[in-house]
Amino acid sequence: MSSTLSPAELRRRIRAGEHTGNTSGSAPGFVQCNIVILPASHAHDFLRFCQLNPKPCPLVAVGEPGDASLPALGDIDIRTDVPAYRVFRGGELSEEVNDITALWQDDFVTFALGCSFSFEEALLADGLEVRNISQGVNVPMYRTNIDCIGSGPFTGKMVVSMRPYRAADAIRAIQICSRFPAVHGAPIHLGDPQLIGIDDLSHPDFGDAVRIDAGELPVFWACGVTPQVALQAAKLPLAITHSPGCMLVTDKRNSQLAVL
Amino acid sequence: MSSTLSPAELRRRIRAGEHTGNTSGSAPGFVQCNIVILPASHAHDFLRFCQLNPKPCPLVAVGEPGDASLPALGDIDIRTDVPAYRVFRGGELSEEVNDITALWQDDFVTFALGCSFSFEEALLADGLEVRNISQGVNVPMYRTNIDCIGSGPFTGKMVVSMRPYRAADAIRAIQICSRFPAVHGAPIHLGDPQLIGIDDLSHPDFGDAVRIDAGELPVFWACGVTPQVALQAAKLPLAITHSPGCMLVTDKRNSQLAVL
Repeated sequence: MSSTLSPAELRRRIRAGEHTGNTSGSAPGFVQCNIVILPASHAHDFLRFCQLNPKPCPLVAVGEPGDASLPALGDIDIRTDVPAYRVFRGGELSEEVNDITALWQDDFVTFALGCSFSFEEALLADGLEVRNISQGVNVPMYRTNIDCIGSGPFTGKMVVSMRPYRAADAIRAIQICSRFPAVHGAPIHLGDPQLIGIDDLSHPDFGDAVRIDAGELPVFWACGVTPQVALQAAKLPLAITHSPGCMLVTDKRNSQLAVL
Repeated sequence: MSSTLSPAELRRRIRAGEHTGNTSGSAPGFVQCNIVILPASHAHDFLRFCQLNPKPCPLVAVGEPGDASLPALGDIDIRTDVPAYRVFRGGELSEEVNDITALWQDDFVTFALGCSFSFEEALLADGLEVRNISQGVNVPMYRTNIDCIGSGPFTGKMVVSMRPYRAADAIRAIQICSRFPAVHGAPIHLGDPQLIGIDDLSHPDFGDAVRIDAGELPVFWACGVTPQVALQAAKLPLAITHSPGCMLVTDKRNSQLAVL
């Protein structure tokens, strides 16, 4: 149903409380974003964290303090236009809600970050398989031993997502994703998982394990869970994110993110 | 000495018989080419072989029948401007000479193909190591189990060159080489050598073995030896190539081959 809606129509339904679930496969061709909302007092440190760690934290847009709109991405009210939100207090998940109008503060700053849905669409369009989509599960994600560069209270290890490919397809996936730095860009590792501190691919830290066939290499992309982990580590009194899979759907086309 | 010469000056020395050795490191920044010369009766089949197998056989220029010049690549006389030539009769190496004026035929067609020297220069310029250069040896090359697409009498398996990299550097090397399809382009494989029919990396079929450190992946590029193997398989009565490492030095800049 909602997959055939325009981004604006889908946001209208979300705003009206008619769509509260995940947005995977909705409004194909359009950029979906990870969302982080936090007080202006920490906005500079968080923005710098993103600037220092662009592969896991690719910034697509930053709102004005206290302003719930994101005009660069469409006619958006960030208080109502995400299907589900997670509210963190002191770094702990406290509640999950479908509307944050009651929680909104005059000093809130919204960050919209690129999401792997965009590059998965580019991989599929090229005829490559995306195993988590084939298997109908969430992409497997793993904490690595790779330190992010810290900024103020924001720090932590990089989280990666993994998709398996035969070598020739991994090389093609690197070429395709290199065109899209705003949605994590090229993979950061492939091959031996232990070299980046992952002991067991069958037990992801987030998401679901996927099948890896003989002759396939695990290919690892920097993941948008990284800034959420850093946000939790910062233990801010109040911060808000989207719920996993329930993204902000924008009017920007995936193809517009291509640098080449 | 010759490394500081312009391509035209270097070719003048080669033409005068003053430089008969390899051209590795000479005229840095300029394209060097693999050379294949054969009768016009087989030129179409060979050209089509290159068109069908562009990664091992990237065409940079094709001469007119009977014409020893290659104006697209500089003021060149292909009969004298390569430091050393190999003459094949019936597919067998019969002699190695420094001048083919006496062998030239009115129906000879010259093919100039891209060479790994160009992409190795791009890798070095980006700060990546090229192990065969660090170790001062020839790059290791291997016959694979990958069939080239045949054309007339030209057929055979793809030959690859190998350079080892840590995964992050392999990903960067893929990005760099993707810009240069005219010099073999992106690698065709990485990781497990047996998946492409290579049993023992320490025993290359051509060139010298190089060190592979812990945590490094072997990365494989399609190699310009492939068309030479196909040429030998074709058993033409007479055909001529450059001698390994003794390339045609052109006036074309490596940077001009970049598609992006």
